[in-house]
Amino acid sequence: MRIVVDAMGSDDNPGPDVAGAVLAARKFGDTMILVGDQAQIEAELAKQDTAGLSIEVVHAGQQIVMTDKPSDIVKGKPDSSMHVGMSLVKNGEADAFVTAGNTGGALAVAMLRQVGLGRIPGVKRPALGVIFPIEERPLLIDNGANADCKPEYLLQFGLMGSLYVERVLGVQNPRVALISNGEEEGKGNSLIKETIPLMQASGLNYVGNIEPKEFVKGGADVGVTDGFTGNIIIKTAEAIASYMNGLIKTEIKASPLTTLGGLLAKPAFGRVKSRLDPDEVGGAPLLGVNGVVIVAHGRSNAYAIKQAIGQARRIVEKQVVEAIQTGLKA
Amino acid sequence: MRIVVDAMGSDDNPGPDVAGAVLAARKFGDTMILVGDQAQIEAELAKQDTAGLSIEVVHAGQQIVMTDKPSDIVKGKPDSSMHVGMSLVKNGEADAFVTAGNTGGALAVAMLRQVGLGRIPGVKRPALGVIFPIEERPLLIDNGANADCKPEYLLQFGLMGSLYVERVLGVQNPRVALISNGEEEGKGNSLIKETIPLMQASGLNYVGNIEPKEFVKGGADVGVTDGFTGNIIIKTAEAIASYMNGLIKTEIKASPLTTLGGLLAKPAFGRVKSRLDPDEVGGAPLLGVNGVVIVAHGRSNAYAIKQAIGQARRIVEKQVVEAIQTGLKA
Repeated sequence: MRIVVDAMGSDDNPGPDVAGAVLAARKFGDTMILVGDQAQIEAELAKQDTAGLSIEVVHAGQQIVMTDKPSDIVKGKPDSSMHVGMSLVKNGEADAFVTAGNTGGALAVAMLRQVGLGRIPGVKRPALGVIFPIEERPLLIDNGANADCKPEYLLQFGLMGSLYVERVLGVQNPRVALISNGEEEGKGNSLIKETIPLMQASGLNYVGNIEPKEFVKGGADVGVTDGFTGNIIIKTAEAIASYMNGLIKTEIKASPLTTLGGLLAKPAFGRVKSRLDPDEVGGAPLLGVNGVVIVAHGRSNAYAIKQAIGQARRIVEKQVVEAIQTGLKA
Repeated sequence: MRIVVDAMGSDDNPGPDVAGAVLAARKFGDTMILVGDQAQIEAELAKQDTAGLSIEVVHAGQQIVMTDKPSDIVKGKPDSSMHVGMSLVKNGEADAFVTAGNTGGALAVAMLRQVGLGRIPGVKRPALGVIFPIEERPLLIDNGANADCKPEYLLQFGLMGSLYVERVLGVQNPRVALISNGEEEGKGNSLIKETIPLMQASGLNYVGNIEPKEFVKGGADVGVTDGFTGNIIIKTAEAIASYMNGLIKTEIKASPLTTLGGLLAKPAFGRVKSRLDPDEVGGAPLLGVNGVVIVAHGRSNAYAIKQAIGQARRIVEKQVVEAIQTGLKA
């Protein structure tokens, strides 16, 4: 397999991106194609032991940064590592594209007629699926690709998410739910209410509407939402987890006895952290794009990049893009 | 002051509701009017020391429960404790109404032409404001009264929230922000984008759009959102806090050493809990209604009911309803 890795993606690029690709090349035995500033990539590669690994470098003269707006990226950076990298997938020279860069940018480049992968025929809007970093690992889709949605988009998010979860995570007959402000009939905004009959008629294993509380408890394998709400959910979850961590640290340090207690309990906190670690999950698949694209967190370290590459491999292996193509025709 | 307390509101009614009213009568020296099933209320009062307190009982033959839909309440329960209680405020026999019951029910009854308080002239939609239980105590508005909103509703939520925070919490020139999936220009759904120019032209201290992370850090005094998103934010925050608590407990108990550490650190966890305690906050004001209505959490205990009554008193005292009336004319 040949995987393109955007070397200029992560916040600390190209260090974690290159190191992650090296880890993945060693672990999976696949070819990694690092795209970005050749000199910088080679300087990073020189720090690594790459003996016997299959690693290629493709130069790209421009770099997309987090503050770039999608419209500027499309017009102003035609030689970015995302443009160059995705065109390799489009032209059949590689099987998947992994980036820890700007999500909106990745989506915008993927949609470009010339270099981009475009949509799978029949897909109304590609969506970003995020594996929620809790025990049950449900998929939340969309997480920000589409701030404004129509019922038929949400229906497709459910279908694409269901196929992803079934194939990549191995969940049989995934439970699909709409994320809402209440489970009872009559709850939800008009988007949710209009989507319910479509879900009911869809043939998906639609289990109804669930609140965030039930979703966090594993009440669904796929939580469907518009991209605005999905993004707010993920960001609220991160904010509260981080706020609570800070508060616990402060209060533990507030007295000698609780400080001692905190020291003794430290391994427990470490285990909590690793159970909630988004790095374990890898990255977010951009579903509905006609090719495999994974967007990892900007804060990714080498390990997270390697995990994201592993996830991309599984999507290729399990033929998720083909499954969505077939699913949409049905 | 005369405060009506819905004795049939909380999940464990009428125990906490009656006990909370007794606590408030003692603390504030005001008259509490308990509305609900007279026999049940009197049985609860008999358990309390009410010597020297001013407590009245008004019978209401019906009770609204959490599973009642607003439409059923309006048509089917004309003698509910909410109907009877709010009509006392409407008729000038009391200054405020406090309930730990069904939020949608309270809103529906408040809007009834016959017994309800109605809207303040000029208010398009009343909204539920919730004090976010973090250090800085920002107000999140709307928290579920309006699942579908228009830009002009959000503008009014900002105005009403700002007046509430200024008068009741004593914040000078409150910072008003729209809750969004990003702070940059171009982020947000169409509702947010259309509300921005209204906020900018409003004369409010509009500080822009903020993400949940910044809101939790105290980046605004008033976070404005539609009721669907607001409710999802609150519910996600509660879900994540509860999930993390559970995870921490489990991991601490996983070994003898961390169990000991957890015991020693217990006072710290207690302090964390009390700092995040929604009971401290009291209840959620229903802003835009032409009278003072506070909706407390269904899980409220007597202390939370007392706090909610205290909050109702402050709203009366600080003339928030009058301030909104004046503010809307300006």
